[in-house]
Amino acid sequence: MEKGKNHNIFSEPIMKFFEGKNFAFLGTINKDGSPQVTPTWVDIKKNEHDQDGFILINTAKDRLKHKNVTRDSRVSVSLIDETNPYTTVTVKGRVVEQTTDGADEHIDKLAKKYLDVDAYPFRSSDEKRVILKIKPDKVFYRPP
Amino acid sequence: MEKGKNHNIFSEPIMKFFEGKNFAFLGTINKDGSPQVTPTWVDIKKNEHDQDGFILINTAKDRLKHKNVTRDSRVSVSLIDETNPYTTVTVKGRVVEQTTDGADEHIDKLAKKYLDVDAYPFRSSDEKRVILKIKPDKVFYRPP
Repeated sequence: MEKGKNHNIFSEPIMKFFEGKNFAFLGTINKDGSPQVTPTWVDIKKNEHDQDGFILINTAKDRLKHKNVTRDSRVSVSLIDETNPYTTVTVKGRVVEQTTDGADEHIDKLAKKYLDVDAYPFRSSDEKRVILKIKPDKVFYRPP
Repeated sequence: MEKGKNHNIFSEPIMKFFEGKNFAFLGTINKDGSPQVTPTWVDIKKNEHDQDGFILINTAKDRLKHKNVTRDSRVSVSLIDETNPYTTVTVKGRVVEQTTDGADEHIDKLAKKYLDVDAYPFRSSDEKRVILKIKPDKVFYRPP
């Protein structure tokens, strides 16, 4: 796969990257226009019926990153491979949908992936989970 | 150390974090106001005579992140500990100085730190290295 060019995020090597235990670093824009970077768990979902799909990030309502993407939907998502940090993916995209539907089950799924536990252990009673659906517009990939 | 509060970046646990082989994820602002996140090597330098100092990032002139910080100096720098990804540091800061002085020696120093080689192996003849000096304004730390 060629370096740097715009890739299909749902191609096998990049899907594998997102399906691994790699953390994503989510870049958002603060109210004053400055950048904010947050490490976060990440998921990817390809549509069944076409070549499209979303990067999924699960956050809690009214956290800084949630407020930021609600104000300005543009994001940058950067990952390095935990087994080879010189293999990288960076995605320029937009949060095109937010949903609380299934968000509690989804954070449990992520806890399984990253921590190998059945239920998300950091849940607090006063938080409402939200799934951010990110549509990838540009995908940069540096292969191993 | 208390979670989340504004910490001194030059305190021991945070200095150690930056001195380790952890990658930094640098958030900058693109020309259109959208966020850009780039994984990068990172260094930290405390002044000898006071409690101040800088986060140092070494880039090449006219790369996207260099162009971005030249236009808008505000950055976010996020690191997770490679041995425990739930230990994190995120710094809100500004690029207050750029210099090519010593930048070639500095990239060799980083190559030693990250790759254990004496000279930066990815050097290209048409690039000019630049050190970005980042003044940390706010430091968020989640201890182990």
